[in-house]
Amino acid sequence: MTAATHFGDRLDETLLRSDSVVCVGLDPRVSQLPPSLRPSDHCDWQAVAAAYLQFCVGIIDAVAAHVGVVKPQSAFFEELGPAGMVALGSIVRYARDKNLLVILDGKRNDIGTTAEAYARGYLGDSSPWQCDALTVSPYLGRDSIDPFVAQCDAANAGIFVLVKTSNPGGGFLQDQVANARPIYRHVADLVTELNKPRLGISGYGPVGTVVGATYPEQLQSLRAAMPTSPILIPGFGAQGAEANDVAFGFDAKGRGAIVNSSRHILFAYERPEYRERYGAGKWQEAAEAATVEMNHQINAVRRR
Amino acid sequence: MTAATHFGDRLDETLLRSDSVVCVGLDPRVSQLPPSLRPSDHCDWQAVAAAYLQFCVGIIDAVAAHVGVVKPQSAFFEELGPAGMVALGSIVRYARDKNLLVILDGKRNDIGTTAEAYARGYLGDSSPWQCDALTVSPYLGRDSIDPFVAQCDAANAGIFVLVKTSNPGGGFLQDQVANARPIYRHVADLVTELNKPRLGISGYGPVGTVVGATYPEQLQSLRAAMPTSPILIPGFGAQGAEANDVAFGFDAKGRGAIVNSSRHILFAYERPEYRERYGAGKWQEAAEAATVEMNHQINAVRRR
Repeated sequence: MTAATHFGDRLDETLLRSDSVVCVGLDPRVSQLPPSLRPSDHCDWQAVAAAYLQFCVGIIDAVAAHVGVVKPQSAFFEELGPAGMVALGSIVRYARDKNLLVILDGKRNDIGTTAEAYARGYLGDSSPWQCDALTVSPYLGRDSIDPFVAQCDAANAGIFVLVKTSNPGGGFLQDQVANARPIYRHVADLVTELNKPRLGISGYGPVGTVVGATYPEQLQSLRAAMPTSPILIPGFGAQGAEANDVAFGFDAKGRGAIVNSSRHILFAYERPEYRERYGAGKWQEAAEAATVEMNHQINAVRRR
Repeated sequence: MTAATHFGDRLDETLLRSDSVVCVGLDPRVSQLPPSLRPSDHCDWQAVAAAYLQFCVGIIDAVAAHVGVVKPQSAFFEELGPAGMVALGSIVRYARDKNLLVILDGKRNDIGTTAEAYARGYLGDSSPWQCDALTVSPYLGRDSIDPFVAQCDAANAGIFVLVKTSNPGGGFLQDQVANARPIYRHVADLVTELNKPRLGISGYGPVGTVVGATYPEQLQSLRAAMPTSPILIPGFGAQGAEANDVAFGFDAKGRGAIVNSSRHILFAYERPEYRERYGAGKWQEAAEAATVEMNHQINAVRRR
């Protein structure tokens, strides 16, 4: 999918067209790869990178008819050194050729021209990585986010700023109360301000946020506080959150948010219910079935 | 240099041996490359990556006799796509072969097994990137830093956690006061706690911090608050801070901190004083002279 339209609108159209708000997280882990793909030497990074490429392409093939968004996790490719990054580049291109929106989960952050380099490198059709969006960490402040927003404007791209993360210890800084508001709320208000002059016809801006499904109360209040920000919701499945928890993230049309699942889809072939149904080794069939099941679960709650 | 010893001690020995606390930031920018290295097409990422490799190797050759630490900025290599990451890998190996400590400036951050992937990927002799240390962003909380600290223990590596950054807008979150302390102080106290059971014979732990030279008052108070944390001080030179500003970062022995300079050294050949002295095109001579000059400036204040 080329970035001809505003990211907020492109995401909204994608959710409407695919009738899915599921984001498939591409987080390959060598020890969980299907045995047929698993290299014998886990420290042969070239071989592991080749296996990750084959696996992620197979997952994309299995899920592309059922979802509109995928999210490669940069860390698992960086873990393999330069060979992993080459594989990541191929996977992003493959997903975009399949008409999927690609959010790279890199949680990048820096200042000035360094932030510009990340933004220009990752975002848009003219960039070498050609991602539609990138996750961004806010500790360095507004002038560290502005360069990413400028690239959103220049390339019809998006970012997802960490607001309230799904991990148990996320509150260490995020929940600290300063000036009568938790820190995560300071970030949320900045995001709303950044989106204000950039709204698409969908009502959404290009500056999305990350709010964990593991904190449903905060998800509900943040949905209200950031009515123009697409929310990327991690924490579903392996991290314990359920469909009822993520329901708070959607707008009145049942859109405005995407729910990520990584392990529950990628490694569905290891889950007893799918192993029974498909037999061992049918990892693509299991991933597809898990995606369809997650669509059903979330579609059932997001339009109530 | 192999990581046979504790990172805090290895850094301390390096500063003593080199009689330098300067960290040369490897932040190549295509538009500022010496004309003899600059590719005609700035969007030919393979060509730009090859030029960055040649330039950074030349800079390392020019400065290796005068400093002990270099800090490649990951963003400028990521900006070139996979080709840039291949160049980055070669540069890290070249620097370590020259007996330099390599801090990768990636400001990475994530949770759980994803943070583990970053840590295993970047830190230590057995990792594909083989860096001595990595910069880390703290917004996700303590459980996002623990996996990096675990890898410090496993691989005699180090991290540098962002505490108080050098940019004008860094205070947006960092200076917010919660529980009677600014947010950056919450991070500082966590770092001190993390170092406590991990001190080397130098008195320093493997968990360093980033404190900008552009805030000398905070640098002074943070030096006192974090007596066991090596401090990486950006902001010198191009960002306006001077030797007197960074003086507050050192311990009583004049160590315990490193001062980064990127553009002022890399692109010294563009500065009038060096162009006059060496003539155009002598970018290695200019970089070496700028490094020697910075050593003199900072050595003059760090032992007062």
